[in-house]
Amino acid sequence: RTLRIGLIPGDGIGKEVIPAGRRLLESLPSSLNLKFEFVDLKAGFETFEQTGAALPDKTVEILKNECDGALFGAVSSPSTAVKGYSSPIVALRKRLDLYANVRPVKSVMTAKNPIDMVIVRENTEDLYVKEEKTYEGPEGKVAEAIKRISYKASFRIAKMAGEIALRRQKIRDSGVPSIHKSPMVTITHKSNVLSQTDGLFRATAREALADPRFKSVGVEEQIVDSMVYKLFRQPETYDVIVAPNLYGDILSDGAAALVGSLGLVPSANVGEGFAIGEPCHGSAPDIMGKNIANPIATLRSVALMLEFMDEEAAAAKIYAAVDGNLEEGKLLSPDLGGSATTTEVVEDILRRL
Amino acid sequence: RTLRIGLIPGDGIGKEVIPAGRRLLESLPSSLNLKFEFVDLKAGFETFEQTGAALPDKTVEILKNECDGALFGAVSSPSTAVKGYSSPIVALRKRLDLYANVRPVKSVMTAKNPIDMVIVRENTEDLYVKEEKTYEGPEGKVAEAIKRISYKASFRIAKMAGEIALRRQKIRDSGVPSIHKSPMVTITHKSNVLSQTDGLFRATAREALADPRFKSVGVEEQIVDSMVYKLFRQPETYDVIVAPNLYGDILSDGAAALVGSLGLVPSANVGEGFAIGEPCHGSAPDIMGKNIANPIATLRSVALMLEFMDEEAAAAKIYAAVDGNLEEGKLLSPDLGGSATTTEVVEDILRRL
Ligand SMILES: CC(C)[C@H](C(=O)O)[C@@H](O)C(=O)O
Ligand SMILES: CC(C)[C@H](C(=O)O)[C@@H](O)C(=O)O
Repeated sequence: RTLRIGLIPGDGIGKEVIPAGRRLLESLPSSLNLKFEFVDLKAGFETFEQTGAALPDKTVEILKNECDGALFGAVSSPSTAVKGYSSPIVALRKRLDLYANVRPVKSVMTAKNPIDMVIVRENTEDLYVKEEKTYEGPEGKVAEAIKRISYKASFRIAKMAGEIALRRQKIRDSGVPSIHKSPMVTITHKSNVLSQTDGLFRATAREALADPRFKSVGVEEQIVDSMVYKLFRQPETYDVIVAPNLYGDILSDGAAALVGSLGLVPSANVGEGFAIGEPCHGSAPDIMGKNIANPIATLRSVALMLEFMDEEAAAAKIYAAVDGNLEEGKLLSPDLGGSATTTEVVEDILRRL
Repeated sequence: RTLRIGLIPGDGIGKEVIPAGRRLLESLPSSLNLKFEFVDLKAGFETFEQTGAALPDKTVEILKNECDGALFGAVSSPSTAVKGYSSPIVALRKRLDLYANVRPVKSVMTAKNPIDMVIVRENTEDLYVKEEKTYEGPEGKVAEAIKRISYKASFRIAKMAGEIALRRQKIRDSGVPSIHKSPMVTITHKSNVLSQTDGLFRATAREALADPRFKSVGVEEQIVDSMVYKLFRQPETYDVIVAPNLYGDILSDGAAALVGSLGLVPSANVGEGFAIGEPCHGSAPDIMGKNIANPIATLRSVALMLEFMDEEAAAAKIYAAVDGNLEEGKLLSPDLGGSATTTEVVEDILRRL
């Protein structure tokens, strides 16, 4: 099988980690019978400065028409609003209808307090519809934004969360060690304040998860503020968390803190038949060009992308190689307290494939 | 000076901790020259079930016309939406224009990694305006909520954050030991996505803090998701955090997790010349009636209320008595791993006044 992968490094360390992702794909054992072709694509603040568009139409078209999947690095946000600029990754998620942002946060099993959760974040609506207006009120400026929650988006994201819970259980049943015994989905919302919007999310998620297919999946709820509290007090209890866009954004950074570094946390932006792997860290201009960015978030994002292309064997190989590197703990990047370069970490992981 | 205090226990353990707050006020040393009168007031889910109103008008009127301050316990949220019921504390904040929710999160100085921050949360707008609507779209129900951010509310909350930063510095300068050397305010927002609403919050907060009065106060910014990440990775770096309503809600629960229990975290809802102390924990129906609720969040909320009534000497006495109890660590409630009852903890703290 030959897979065509779009590569969108973006800004900052995106340019260092996406090439590492490419190397990983090129280094997968031939026994997997996978071939890859790559197409380099532009997006980001630098692209905006050069072309006036942060997300060129050409990038979207090539992804849509020619690619089986893609890897996205990171984009820089200007420190003050720049006219005409808006985040290309948010736009990309919407234009390709990549309705789920899947963010597994997992420590190695040998950690003192192992955790293993995945945050399934709705990726197309909520406050991210970016419908804002500003007007002059009697006491100065007032700005409003719309938070939109739909039955359709809530249903499909909860369904995906249920499917991921089942898939994780299948992997556990196959003998992969885990801290969880049975599948569980936690629905996050703030319906005690937002009874209509978050109320709709909550009720719809419950409806989707009531499908007999999910009868083995436990379902519980957490209000978002107490979810953040529990995330830090009892992180080991969480298996799959499903949340509207903004809460998912916040929760996944919080969960990342638990494993020691954002540099470890991958994500996939997933739609019908298409997935873009994306490390959760940003463009990190402060460490750019130093060859010290942690490549693991990207390597795991490659694996996650492959999972959504049903290439689970390839994904499993990558996860195991990364875990091997982390468990040995000899070649770690500076964010994990080590002194290895990006290249050294990548090479150590490739050796373990 | 005689102060008249409204007591609103609300539901659940609110009924156990608010009486502890009253006892504390009655037990303050006479050298402080403070007298207290109390008026019992109703609000909460039980009140709603009895009277049809979660926040009776009478409660609001007595607070407005007769009281110098108040203590609020907690309210239960029904597990599914109940027609006509909506959170009385959210309503109270708005009706009394208690525009700031001040939440200090502090470990004892003898903690392994001491932290000492205060979250200054805007308390009247953002998604808490609760302007929602639901309509039938082509693919099912759609619900929308308004997130409103105004110049006026953003300015006054940032100004209050600046004032609190200065006040904290004054207390440090007077010799009270602290982990901070100089005052700092961190502005939290998500203006990389919400350029108008959160952009307005950010720009206005910067403007308010640029006042020459605050020239000794450092000002920095954090995007809310990375704020949650940093809160858990480097909590000791934060002094004063200012945030729109919802982010403030989430951040304060997150910060509470760092000190080991929500049962330790106080808050004050503050307006012009009026403050309501409120423990950050909820009504905790699971432990209600067992006399094991941690009273410390309420006792510290009493102190915080007194600070906003300019009774700083009384507040300092209470903080010191609570710290004494925690540092000794002999009489702790179950949430802190101890086995003391609510009454025993209260009595230990009263002894230390
Ligand atoms: C950069 C920003 C727009 C983005 C988001 O909020 O989704 C980022 O925080 C993320 O989590 O991918
Ligand atoms: C109970 C709820 C409405 C409230 C809020 O969101 O403000 C609570 O979480 C709080 O922090 O006081």
